[in-house]
Amino acid sequence: MKTATIVGAGLAGSLWAVYLAKAGYNVTIFERRSDIRLAEIQAGKSINLALSHRGWEALRAVGVDHHVNELAIPMTGRIMHSATGELTAQPYGQEGQAIYSVSRGGLNAKMMDVAEKEFGATINYNMQCTGGNLEEGIVYLTNKLTGEHSEHQSDLVFGCDGAYSALRYKAFQKLDRFNYSQEFVEDGYKEFLIPANADGSYKLDKNALHIWPRGRFMLIALANEDGSFTCTLFMPFEGDENAFDKINTKAEIEAFFETRFPDFYEMCPNVVEQWGTHPLSSLAIMRCYPWTSGKAALMGDAAHATVPFYGQGMNASLEDCHTMGKLMEEHDHDWEAIFKAYQADRKPNGDAVQELSKHNYLVMRDFVADPQFLLQKKFENRIQELYPEKYIALYSMVSFSSIPYAEAWKKGQEQDVYMKDLMQQHDIESLMKEGKVDDLIHRIFKDKLVSN
Amino acid sequence: MKTATIVGAGLAGSLWAVYLAKAGYNVTIFERRSDIRLAEIQAGKSINLALSHRGWEALRAVGVDHHVNELAIPMTGRIMHSATGELTAQPYGQEGQAIYSVSRGGLNAKMMDVAEKEFGATINYNMQCTGGNLEEGIVYLTNKLTGEHSEHQSDLVFGCDGAYSALRYKAFQKLDRFNYSQEFVEDGYKEFLIPANADGSYKLDKNALHIWPRGRFMLIALANEDGSFTCTLFMPFEGDENAFDKINTKAEIEAFFETRFPDFYEMCPNVVEQWGTHPLSSLAIMRCYPWTSGKAALMGDAAHATVPFYGQGMNASLEDCHTMGKLMEEHDHDWEAIFKAYQADRKPNGDAVQELSKHNYLVMRDFVADPQFLLQKKFENRIQELYPEKYIALYSMVSFSSIPYAEAWKKGQEQDVYMKDLMQQHDIESLMKEGKVDDLIHRIFKDKLVSN
Repeated sequence: MKTATIVGAGLAGSLWAVYLAKAGYNVTIFERRSDIRLAEIQAGKSINLALSHRGWEALRAVGVDHHVNELAIPMTGRIMHSATGELTAQPYGQEGQAIYSVSRGGLNAKMMDVAEKEFGATINYNMQCTGGNLEEGIVYLTNKLTGEHSEHQSDLVFGCDGAYSALRYKAFQKLDRFNYSQEFVEDGYKEFLIPANADGSYKLDKNALHIWPRGRFMLIALANEDGSFTCTLFMPFEGDENAFDKINTKAEIEAFFETRFPDFYEMCPNVVEQWGTHPLSSLAIMRCYPWTSGKAALMGDAAHATVPFYGQGMNASLEDCHTMGKLMEEHDHDWEAIFKAYQADRKPNGDAVQELSKHNYLVMRDFVADPQFLLQKKFENRIQELYPEKYIALYSMVSFSSIPYAEAWKKGQEQDVYMKDLMQQHDIESLMKEGKVDDLIHRIFKDKLVSN
Repeated sequence: MKTATIVGAGLAGSLWAVYLAKAGYNVTIFERRSDIRLAEIQAGKSINLALSHRGWEALRAVGVDHHVNELAIPMTGRIMHSATGELTAQPYGQEGQAIYSVSRGGLNAKMMDVAEKEFGATINYNMQCTGGNLEEGIVYLTNKLTGEHSEHQSDLVFGCDGAYSALRYKAFQKLDRFNYSQEFVEDGYKEFLIPANADGSYKLDKNALHIWPRGRFMLIALANEDGSFTCTLFMPFEGDENAFDKINTKAEIEAFFETRFPDFYEMCPNVVEQWGTHPLSSLAIMRCYPWTSGKAALMGDAAHATVPFYGQGMNASLEDCHTMGKLMEEHDHDWEAIFKAYQADRKPNGDAVQELSKHNYLVMRDFVADPQFLLQKKFENRIQELYPEKYIALYSMVSFSSIPYAEAWKKGQEQDVYMKDLMQQHDIESLMKEGKVDDLIHRIFKDKLVSN
């Protein structure tokens, strides 16, 4: 029986353990933190994630999606909140399509349970990775409670230990010719909680992702199962105004929310207290290559951490597992071939998900407040409804399909040029009002060949 | 008396120690290696560097340039060696201008002597930096001979420990929002030695930098004081041909040099043996920011390591010392102000020297074999001779002036467009042959305003 070591019991690590255990490997996981199933979730670090098609597919491939169904709240579109409290809705896709708000902790705990109880993986907690010998498959560890040093050798080693991966930092980064970059964006984030109503009901529509787009900064909210919403404020660290370094006193905090996000301010009475107790966190894009060396591979955020604006970081990580799982079968457990194919396949997609994430920050904080952008989305949705085989909008390719990220990003940019051109040639708004937009779409798309 | 710690006793570290000691600081240096003055220089790692204007200025500012004069061999231009052994000379600048071949070890040893003996700096060898507390000015160390751990606190800490800086890796890279990248180029290098003749004389003109430009790969040679030349082959690690991974057997090595570099092959009879014993090394560009934090700053390669193709890596490092020295006086030892001004001034120049280095690789391995390029250089030289206040070629701005690298790079790109345009409008080659090129230059430049 072959042995595999996974560094990190997060989302990628715990799902990848399921894949490996299911394929007959003896799996040992080393996790730096204590068991999250026993620990209290830290205030201001609850974190909700948006699970979409690629993530579900990765769960489905090893038959664990049913465990997640009960944790997931569908979000069928965005609801934008203006500075005067007006709401505008925009569907993400077609009827029946949604992305899902899930708690990081809940999903993670579930995967750990499955890996341990259904497949016999072993998880060791409070074990800090302090180095690795990638050629020999050795991981060096320190027990954080006892201070004891140890090493663990196995046939395969997987670094699933996140954006600040210790295996990458302590082993991969020391390799000759290892390319690496960590690029922090100018913005930080702080979390806030909108509590449930007294009767446990939601203060906002739970089946939407709420956005308060304000140009250079924004607030978003995703529903939790208990009636509350986890909200995140994204804003520059430094600036002339609307920057974290300019908002310090009680009066400044209150004035900021009261004028910029009045409806949120109403729903979140203790925002000043939360500002003081919740941490201000930074956001980075991490790039590296190669992703494999000797007996080891990097997966998930350890290989391609990104900023959270497309909600695809987790989905990309789960898709890494899905792809590696398929390659494991295709190459019949020949790991030299699997690793080679894995990084050739996934590296361009890791790069693309980072580009998509950066682009979608502009979309969320700025474009979604622009009527012309919303009109284009509406027009695209109608085209997609009428000619689903001939047109898929970028958001749908990313969130509702398994089209490789690199392909989606390239095609999406081409489509955007094409759509902007169409919108300039035709007065889409009037055509929609007059009910004539379908005629135009039929005229253009009836005889159009499927691109690709 | 204020205390300063320098990590690394290389070129930047030893010169910076002179600056600090001269300004009255109590300086302690920690160096990972043993004393290079006592150690044998490793075969295939002798390394000659080109010292140019900025380096000399940095030495002159603290009165140590006279120590270096005796070590330096002037190179007034390039000599290109064609595949059939023909030589073409191209001067670097005007009459009397030169860059200087110096041995890294010799220069380094000299600076260490001066820092210790003239100014009382202390150098501790075999001391590996294992971390740092930048706010408190603490450096953590391990004695490589005894294994003993220690820490050293001072008022100021300088990371002058090179491209693979331990202080950057172990302390700066752990800072929140520290941007960092290491980017390896596709090419590696291997050193060879052309021995002196039996009578100690040189086999090639010692007052030139020799280049064998071959498009995607190249060989260069710089004179040593003892009559030998240190040669470096730059070539892709992997490739279809002319790549390190394709040249392995004795026959392949001999065939490679015999056909690509016949005159070199003649002068270097034991090239096969050297190929086997000299290491194949990689080349990287390291970028990071900020360069200062708390009581600490990064200088030289630790802040902006580059590829060696402009011969400016060392000069840029020495110029860091020169700039920091000037700021130390200007801001009267107010280190918060000095550090702020230092990184604001030097970061754009560090970026520019990296761009210049990458660009000059193309120049050296490819352009210098192009008659049109050489003609342009000749034309530029003549312009500069006639109108030295109105035109300075890029190479001269970089190598024979103190114009900031960022400004030189920007201006150089603009000038190149301008020159290419002039060369298209006029048949410079014929004008030169007919002795009429000066008329053209006078016509264009007489009334031209000085740019900037």
